Amino acid sequence: MTRFALTIEFDGRPYMGWQHQNHGPSVQQAIEEAIEAVTQEKVRIQAAGRTDSGVHALAMRAHADIEKPLSAFRLGEAINAKLKGHPIAIISCEQVADDWHARFSCIGRAYIYHIVNRRAPLTLQSGRAWQIAHPLDSDAMHDAAQILLGLHDFTTFRSTICQSKSPIKTLDQLDVVRSGDDIKIYAGARSFLHHQVRSMVGCLAAVGSGRWTKDDLQSALEAKDRQRLAINAPPDGLYFVKAIYPE
Amino acid sequence: MTRFALTIEFDGRPYMGWQHQNHGPSVQQAIEEAIEAVTQEKVRIQAAGRTDSGVHALAMRAHADIEKPLSAFRLGEAINAKLKGHPIAIISCEQVADDWHARFSCIGRAYIYHIVNRRAPLTLQSGRAWQIAHPLDSDAMHDAAQILLGLHDFTTFRSTICQSKSPIKTLDQLDVVRSGDDIKIYAGARSFLHHQVRSMVGCLAAVGSGRWTKDDLQSALEAKDRQRLAINAPPDGLYFVKAIYPE
Repeated sequence: MTRFALTIEFDGRPYMGWQHQNHGPSVQQAIEEAIEAVTQEKVRIQAAGRTDSGVHALAMRAHADIEKPLSAFRLGEAINAKLKGHPIAIISCEQVADDWHARFSCIGRAYIYHIVNRRAPLTLQSGRAWQIAHPLDSDAMHDAAQILLGLHDFTTFRSTICQSKSPIKTLDQLDVVRSGDDIKIYAGARSFLHHQVRSMVGCLAAVGSGRWTKDDLQSALEAKDRQRLAINAPPDGLYFVKAIYPE
Repeated sequence: MTRFALTIEFDGRPYMGWQHQNHGPSVQQAIEEAIEAVTQEKVRIQAAGRTDSGVHALAMRAHADIEKPLSAFRLGEAINAKLKGHPIAIISCEQVADDWHARFSCIGRAYIYHIVNRRAPLTLQSGRAWQIAHPLDSDAMHDAAQILLGLHDFTTFRSTICQSKSPIKTLDQLDVVRSGDDIKIYAGARSFLHHQVRSMVGCLAAVGSGRWTKDDLQSALEAKDRQRLAINAPPDGLYFVKAIYPE
């Protein structure tokens, strides 16, 4: 048995999310079926994060244990060939130690959320960004975002179906950067709760539009109450961009 | 009658190109039908450039003459509402002088061509970039590109169905810039021949892969012979990004 680490890019739109679902196609299933087509092995892959339906990835990490003797290069190429027709690609494939675990060895995760702040509807970015027509004050968004840094009970920003044992997480980065009509929000933490990035972005959008003050965000955080959420941002703009491992 | 200048973004994939075609949908037709739905006027719009099937635009410019009294803002919003379902958006709409002409007043046009230089197939960029699996030397491409600057007979780089009166054009800019796997080629001129950017990019890709030398590009240019073209790059990676007008 050899363990391989995969770096995976995908367009999340056609899928119910990363994880296996009974009610529709998943990214995980597509990759596992491709691996089976290559190796004739039924493999269960493990990923650094479980993205929701419609959420994209530029560099998801996952691992797979394979019996068939194949070089990492050949395996990655063969999986890509079998993924034809799916907007999923293995960007890199490398052999790792048997105790390397895409999820449990991961010590940091990074997302980017993309807002297009303009009146005109999206064309090339349709399904890949959140279009907000009214002007957003991105400086106010960035300023307010800093409230959320550090160790907090993020219950307000957590899906009611979140399976995490604790709502307490440490947020390391939440930067809001504007370039023309594009606003990008960079979020980094050891791990995130289900819907945490989208919920934080939804509240920052409320701040950016002037509907919420910085104090409103502070009190929503302190309330530890999902009812106090401004809005959960749509999945369209969310990208899993990096999983960090020791060394 | 009031003349309005439109700035238009579109995803070129569903269309036979900018211009009206008998055999399929065009961007021009979609916009003219939207204008008719708003104004009940049959308007023929004029554009700065006529892009091919599959070619995209971030900021195509066009003008329309409208009888119905409407503010520029209302007209732009109303056209966008009628374009719903089309990956076409009016980014801005402004009133201009009656003698302003999107095509004939235009003194400069700029395109960006996007190559993704990696083995993995495209996912999010599918249909929006040219994937080239073998490594490209982007410095060699940039260096060779400078041969094409200035006044030349670009017959080698011109479609056989090009309707331009002369193959002689002045190329002002052809820069090749790499960032990671992304190679962007910035092309600027007063005007371009049909397929000129795609044909130049195809030859630069031949240089980048080592199949052509800089001298091969030079002799292909000097040959003024379409048969000497290396390859016409696919439309997927081409974006019309700017039309320049006096003042």
